[in-house]
Amino acid sequence: MTGNLYLIPVDLGNDSIDEVIPQKVLELTRKLDYFIVEDIRTARRYLSKIKTGHCIDDIRFSILNEHSKSEDIASLLKSVVEGHDVGVMSEAGLPGLADPGADVVRIAHEKGIRVIPLVGPSSIFMALIASGMNGQNFAFVGYLPVKPKEREQRIWMLESRSLNERQSQLFIEAPYRNNQLLTSLLSVCRKNTRLCIAYNISHEDEFIVTKTIGAWKKQTPDLHKKPCLFILNAGC
Amino acid sequence: MTGNLYLIPVDLGNDSIDEVIPQKVLELTRKLDYFIVEDIRTARRYLSKIKTGHCIDDIRFSILNEHSKSEDIASLLKSVVEGHDVGVMSEAGLPGLADPGADVVRIAHEKGIRVIPLVGPSSIFMALIASGMNGQNFAFVGYLPVKPKEREQRIWMLESRSLNERQSQLFIEAPYRNNQLLTSLLSVCRKNTRLCIAYNISHEDEFIVTKTIGAWKKQTPDLHKKPCLFILNAGC
Repeated sequence: MTGNLYLIPVDLGNDSIDEVIPQKVLELTRKLDYFIVEDIRTARRYLSKIKTGHCIDDIRFSILNEHSKSEDIASLLKSVVEGHDVGVMSEAGLPGLADPGADVVRIAHEKGIRVIPLVGPSSIFMALIASGMNGQNFAFVGYLPVKPKEREQRIWMLESRSLNERQSQLFIEAPYRNNQLLTSLLSVCRKNTRLCIAYNISHEDEFIVTKTIGAWKKQTPDLHKKPCLFILNAGC
Repeated sequence: MTGNLYLIPVDLGNDSIDEVIPQKVLELTRKLDYFIVEDIRTARRYLSKIKTGHCIDDIRFSILNEHSKSEDIASLLKSVVEGHDVGVMSEAGLPGLADPGADVVRIAHEKGIRVIPLVGPSSIFMALIASGMNGQNFAFVGYLPVKPKEREQRIWMLESRSLNERQSQLFIEAPYRNNQLLTSLLSVCRKNTRLCIAYNISHEDEFIVTKTIGAWKKQTPDLHKKPCLFILNAGC
């Protein structure tokens, strides 16, 4: 009999795990001894933090990251096929959202393996619900282009789509380029378009604020090196 | 000093609250005595289930649902402005996602009220991560049109977008129309397009399965009256 593939959430760098991970999810995570992770060191650190039931050295880790070759990913599921329950863990938040986790889940479905998602924090969804933007129609599009001209064209396209389809547009940027992205947003978008800027989500200094482009122009925050999420909506 | 507006998650009809709501989120919910809710009866039932610290009759509920007039929504924030912490609760899962909660959050931002999202279950992102579909670029578009011709055109548009932009497309349907929607999907989409069908998420009989349209045609499930989420991806 094959095992299950559990999608294990981890915290977003919080002090208090009990704020972001349900009790039974912690209990299940502590019991597993097979994991597919992005980085072994941070995975070990998380398992120590939640006081895993195993000796850390007995836990078997396989690596899945952006360097993994597609032909090697199927072999990560060997332990599941042999009957072990395996957990997939990302660096932060939920696996399979804005990380390579989805690749192994796709192959699990092809093999008929049961995939079980668990509840935990996601900066994408937390920013979205707290932004006041349309949550009945939204898109997360990942990173925008780096080159200024292409970035501006993409922002213009996203703003148009948010207006025409009433679809909120979420995106991220490498933290050291946040200020350049914000400058582009302020120069391209209409003054009545609403922009939510969210950073340090679920931390004590959490910042989630929605204003019009016009209002952000008057008071522009410094976002340098802050892990940020942006949400745009030119519609209602 | 104004209070905070907390976005309070509730379970998805689970037996075990500890599987889906973190301990500290439960503690905070039990302490609140002001709520903005979709339906008072289900809100009371949830608060009884988690053993609120207050006498249920002392808790003040305001209603925000699809019948609320936009001019009345600002008045729902009166208690926050007066200094009380207020919780927004949906019928299931996270408020502000696929429900009217976003309207009151939008106005809270206009008034400079701090909005704090809490961690809990959401069938949308649980289905997404467990589907194996692209989680680096995805859209949730709510309900599709009811009329067959319009629905088919919309499906065709969503399939094209998933192919051209590699954007996974998530949508829902009224449970009694699921089978009609599935019939349309099987007739419109290419045979290699992947479709995830997800229902009863976080329940014991949870079903989250991704197959190609060709494979679903050979073995078509009965989805009548099951609360379902569909995810389409014609790309990789």
